[in-house]
Order: sequence, then C-alpha cells, then structure tokens
Amino acid sequence: MDDVLSRMEIKGLSVATIRQCVNATKELERISGEKFVHLEFGVPGIKAPQIGVDMQKLALDAGIAAVYPPTGGIPEFKWNASAFINAFVGIGISPECVIPTVGSMQGCFNLLMECSQLHEGRNAVLYMSPGFPSHYLQSKVLGLEARILDIYNCRGEKLRAAIEEKMADGKVCAMLYSNPNNPTWACLTEEELMIMGELCTEYDVIALEDMAYMCMDFRKDRSVPFAPPYQPTIGRYTDNFALMISASKIFSYAGERIGFAAISNKLYEREYPALQQRYGLGKFGDNFVLTFIYVNSSGCSRSAQNAMSEMMEASVSGKYDFVGELREYARRAHRAKEIFFKHGFSLVYEKDLDKDVSDGFFFTIGYEGMRGDELLYNLMRCGISAITLTATRSDQQGIRVCVSMLNTDDDFTALDDRLGLFVKIRSEE
Amino acid sequence: MDDVLSRMEIKGLSVATIRQCVNATKELERISGEKFVHLEFGVPGIKAPQIGVDMQKLALDAGIAAVYPPTGGIPEFKWNASAFINAFVGIGISPECVIPTVGSMQGCFNLLMECSQLHEGRNAVLYMSPGFPSHYLQSKVLGLEARILDIYNCRGEKLRAAIEEKMADGKVCAMLYSNPNNPTWACLTEEELMIMGELCTEYDVIALEDMAYMCMDFRKDRSVPFAPPYQPTIGRYTDNFALMISASKIFSYAGERIGFAAISNKLYEREYPALQQRYGLGKFGDNFVLTFIYVNSSGCSRSAQNAMSEMMEASVSGKYDFVGELREYARRAHRAKEIFFKHGFSLVYEKDLDKDVSDGFFFTIGYEGMRGDELLYNLMRCGISAITLTATRSDQQGIRVCVSMLNTDDDFTALDDRLGLFVKIRSEE
Repeated sequence: MDDVLSRMEIKGLSVATIRQCVNATKELERISGEKFVHLEFGVPGIKAPQIGVDMQKLALDAGIAAVYPPTGGIPEFKWNASAFINAFVGIGISPECVIPTVGSMQGCFNLLMECSQLHEGRNAVLYMSPGFPSHYLQSKVLGLEARILDIYNCRGEKLRAAIEEKMADGKVCAMLYSNPNNPTWACLTEEELMIMGELCTEYDVIALEDMAYMCMDFRKDRSVPFAPPYQPTIGRYTDNFALMISASKIFSYAGERIGFAAISNKLYEREYPALQQRYGLGKFGDNFVLTFIYVNSSGCSRSAQNAMSEMMEASVSGKYDFVGELREYARRAHRAKEIFFKHGFSLVYEKDLDKDVSDGFFFTIGYEGMRGDELLYNLMRCGISAITLTATRSDQQGIRVCVSMLNTDDDFTALDDRLGLFVKIRSEE
Repeated sequence: MDDVLSRMEIKGLSVATIRQCVNATKELERISGEKFVHLEFGVPGIKAPQIGVDMQKLALDAGIAAVYPPTGGIPEFKWNASAFINAFVGIGISPECVIPTVGSMQGCFNLLMECSQLHEGRNAVLYMSPGFPSHYLQSKVLGLEARILDIYNCRGEKLRAAIEEKMADGKVCAMLYSNPNNPTWACLTEEELMIMGELCTEYDVIALEDMAYMCMDFRKDRSVPFAPPYQPTIGRYTDNFALMISASKIFSYAGERIGFAAISNKLYEREYPALQQRYGLGKFGDNFVLTFIYVNSSGCSRSAQNAMSEMMEASVSGKYDFVGELREYARRAHRAKEIFFKHGFSLVYEKDLDKDVSDGFFFTIGYEGMRGDELLYNLMRCGISAITLTATRSDQQGIRVCVSMLNTDDDFTALDDRLGLFVKIRSEE
C-alpha cells in the first residue's frame, strides 16, 4: 500500500483528493483482486429518471443537436427552473435570472471569477467549512484568497462574530457554502442563514449558496411543491446571493453535466462600474451570461437542458417526487451509521445546535485516539476507502463517508466485516 | 435603427460583438416585420448526422445519465479522437492526451489559463489576427495581455520577423490562431506553420491551434482517411502545441457543446515546477484534466461524448464522409461571392500568398471608400447583418460574411436584391 501511495504521488492521506483516493483504491483492488467498500466518491447511486431520458431523446430527434443553445439557456428551462425554485425553495427568481450551467461546478467557477472582478482589490472568498474540496481548488486556480471558517465551534449566534472577523478588512467578495453541508450533512438553520444574510448585506459580500443536496434534510418533509417547509435559503435575508442547483444529485443526472445558477433579481440587474469599464457591459447578470459563461463554454448541452427542464416541470406539477426518490440515501446512511457505531466509531459533526444531524448523502465519522489520516490509512488496509476531513478543510479528526455506493446488502455486510477486521487488528497491535 | 443601437448599448458597430449584432438585428426584424439576410452568426447550416444522434440516444438508454463521466473523457472517445487526428491531420497523439471539452471554447479557455500559469511573469498571448472575437475576450476575462499580429501584411517568410518582434521580451506564453482562419478563410501554409513551430520551440511558447474548420480548405481534397493531403498543422514542426477540435462545425453538432483538446504527447508529460508547487501535480496534461477541467465543469456531457466518438469512428473507417457534407459551405460561398462581386464589392483578404483563398464557411468583403463600420451600418439599413473586421481584430476595413444561414434560393435572391438596394442608395446619396 505504501508503494501504491508513493507511485501515485500521494504525499499524505490527509491532503489526498477524492480522485487520488479513487485512483489509489483502484490500483489496490487490481493488485489484491479484492473489491473495496467505496465510501469516498459522491456519485449518484440511483437511476436517472426515465422522464428526463425520454425528453432528452425527443429533443435529439427534433434536431436540436445542430443548433447552438442560447448562452443564457433555452426559454423552457429558464421558466421551469424559476418555478422549481418557487415551489421548493419558496422564493421568487425571474426566469431571466436563471442560467443553465455545465453542472454547478461551472456555475460556481464563473460566479467566483465574476465576484472577484467587481471591486478592485477585493478577491478573498470566505468558505464556511468543512466543504466540497473542489470549491477550494477553484480559488487556487483563479488565484483568489481562500479564508476558511470551520463552523464546528461557532454554530448559532456565535456565527456572527466569527464571520465578522473574517469580513472586517473589506476584502471578501464572496461567501461560499453548501447546505446541507458536504461532508458533515450539518444544515444551517434559518437563524444562521439570517445572520449570514445580514452580514452579506452589511459588508456587500455575495453569498454563493450551493444547493447540490436541496430538500435532502430528511428530518422534515420538503417534498410537496409550493408548500412549507421549504428548503432553507439565505435568499430570504439578503439580495446579495446566487443559488447553485445541480441535476447531478437531486435528479441523479450527473453524467449529462447540467445544473443552473439562479441570481437574485436585484443582483442580476445591479450595475458594477468595474465590469462596465472592463467589458462594456455593467450588469452583473448580463456579464455572467454574455461574458463569463459565453467565453467559458458558450452555454451547455441543449438536450440536457431539455431533460432537466422536463424533470423540474414534473416535480413542480407533482408528477414526479424527486425528494421521495432521494430518501433512499437516508435509509442507507442510517444503516451505515448503525454499523459504524456497533464497532465503536462516533459521528464527528453530530449536531445542528440541539438536534442530531439528518441522515443523508454524507456523514462524518471518527475513532477515538486516531487522527483522520491514520484512520483512513488503517481503514484502507482493511479494504475501505474514504477521504479525510482534513481534505474538506475541517479542523476535526475523522473521515467523510458517502453512502451512495452502498447499493446492496452485500455492501453493508462487507462494511460490517471490514470494520470488524479493523477493530481486531487494533486490539492486536 | 439608431434608436435600437442605442437601446442595446452598442456604442459603435466597429466594436459590436456577434451577439450584440444578432440581438440588434432581431429587434430590427421585430419592428420592421421583415427578415434580415443573416451573414453574422456562424451556426451550422447543415443537419446533425443521424449516426451521432442515434448513438447519443443509445447511450442514454444504457443509463449513462446517472454516472459522472471521467474528467479525462470516456475511453472510446479518447481512442476514436486519437485515430481521427491520425487519419485526417496525419500526426500521432496518444488517446491519453486527448480530452473532451464543452466545445473548443472550454478547451481554449482552460488551455490559456494553464499556459499563463507555467512560468511566473509570462502571461501574454500572441494572437494571429484577425480571429474569432471570443478568443480575445477570453484573455480579457482571464486578465492576460493580448498581443495582436495582423497577418495581412506578413504572409510567408515575412512572418518570422513579425512574430519574433512580438516574442522577443520572453513574456509570451501561448500563441493562438484558427486554421482555416475565421474570418478570412486564409489558410496558413506548411512553410508558415514551420516558421511558427520553430519560433514556438525557440521561445518556449505553446501553440494553441484551433481546428474548428479542419479539412474545410476545399482547394484540396482532404476527405480520405489516412491519406494525404492532410490538414496542415503546426504539430509537425514543434512539440509545444495543443489542437482544439470541435464537433460544432465539422459534425454540425453545436447544440451539444462537444469538442476536444489534443495535447502533444511531449507537452502532456512535461513537468512544470510552477504547477507542481501550486497544485502538487507537475505534469501539464495531468493538470489540464485534474486541475483545470475538473474544477471548471467536471468534464462534459457523457452522451455527447458517445455521439462524437461514434461520428469520429465512422469518419475514420470511411463510413461517413464529413468533408463531403461540408462542401455545401463552399458552394454557398462561391455563389455569395459572385453576388457581392456583381454589385462592386471585393474580397479584403483574398490571397494565400499567390493563391486565391478557398471558398468556405467565412469570407471577408469590402466596398471601396467605406470603413467597415460605415459599410455594416449601410448594409443593416438594407436588411443585411454581419460583423465588422474590426471586431475580429483586423486592421483592414470591411465585414465578415458567414454563409451558413444562406440555406435556400430565396436567401440568395434576397441578398442580391438588398445589395442592389445598397448600391442604388449609394448612387443617390
């Protein structure tokens, strides 16, 4: 195993990326001839909805492949995405302000880039951590300063002082986070989002709210369109925000790389002198579409837009219950946690203030007396792969567990057996 | 018309972008109730091949929509793209070094970004101009210095001194051009490409060769796979190059946003200390895939990869003659030029050294005594839209004509009538 890690140029498991872990695991599987229990990679573990596939094929039959998509998106996509936000997030964003992107990854990349160009000298990004490792890499690629705030010790009203400290010098242009959180599945409360929204207004910072896992806090039933409880959002507390919604997880449509950015109506229309001077266009929204997305990729797959548009329409009209489909992840998480607990592990991020975190796509797990990289190393010896919390910019010790690849009873049995092996080896060493 | 231009914030036709011209024209069509002759927008004017559409639908039926594509591309795409280059460009690039992108736009954007991070202090891009307007905007978005070299007056051996002057200070990291050229349809000769390749090696500059219109210099028959004459390429004269090939024009597949970057084997493997330090990965190719493309969009549509892969396979095996299909553009160009000549217009960029430029997707046209913006303004009054050569960073006066929207006899008749009107108004004013 040391040999494989060294050949893969992995200098330490605490900083290994997801893909490095995946590659190392593949190589170890090849050498050993044994399959790992894969807890590292957040791929959808559910089939793509037939309704999306059928519409995408219809669009292809209609001849759309030959025609450039409008950079701002096809009209039906924009309409249905606006209605989808209204139905499940409970806020109003005009169709014009919704722009399809090549997954949320592209939306986030371009939003970060644009936010860093709004004011001379303001190019720091405040990350509510832990978080999605690629989000940090985006700042590094773009040459932006990443400021990390681990929310472990500052939930609730404590958040205000912690954020203000990071924003005080006026250099922060954007704040980025996922809610529900990847990797902890912690969910920011309405009170916390209000604090964050107030501070974004006060310091003129733009909140980039990643809703990759929207409506997947299963402690409440968010499956009914146009009825509360809605997905919590900072959009109720500030105008300085953009949502990023991806079809990858909520519609299990990761292969077609489709999602959207939804920019608040006020931010979309806001004029920035620095943008006007640089591009001859002043509005935030016009630049997002005609400057950033245009030169980045000239829009995104037209047939995938048709697919996602149809899945959103079906969700809004109640024909398709996307939240119900995703409950499968909560069932898997519950079962996996029980197995970890049986073998003496415990949750690292376990509470949203006074409530237990929800069961969902991810959870965090630790083992007393072991650093995250030690834990991962020893789990990998037993044929279990994951990533450390350090790789998600957490200050805590432990690993991130993704339940999406736990598809069968055999997978859970293998997890149980291998954790048993881990404990046995520990007791012998 | 002045009112529309002002409302669209178009400050002068000489600098208006394609999309601004499209939007202004749409508005003028709405007001006048009359359809324009559209010569501005380079959209495919040919149907998408059924072979691609069928394969894309098969892939969707196989359930690929739920699975993330590998960031470096699916294996069959990489194999078929490598074979496609071999068959029609006549050079060898390994499958590993071919990476699908969301159109060539994304490939170029990320290659420019990576090239600008290879050496501290080297972030100028040398553009062989005129060129595709969006390529210039990419540098502006990325904060890179754009150096413009209008090749009008320095074809052949003259190119060497002109390029050396631009590269002399050692700040140029990349050289970017399209061949055949957008907008002039000038085609760089093997001699010119050799000069450029030698200088790229000497000054350690990376050539980004946009082959959006590969094999569309119809003066020679380049339709036979694995047989000369091949598409000319700088790849025969330097290791410092990446090709960008898009399905948008050669396969009329613009709607699905699919293309690829093909990095020379040596460049792919080359280690850059600056990359190693910044990302913990030293190789150019690994960073292109795992750093740049990954955080930009996590790859591109998986079903579109299947479609393009199949179209390349069919081209390589001789089942599908993509060059033959595209000859339609040459026929349209020939007919359109005849009409322009009849009304007293002439080509601006008319020669490749001693040969007439080929008939193809674009040509450039001027009218004696008129600046490009005046000419466009007066053509728009007569219901003809285009873009100026100034917008393509040419020092010459005239407009760019794209023939893709000239689909029917009626379109040619309308062009003829309106140019007649233009001449009539000129003679009366």
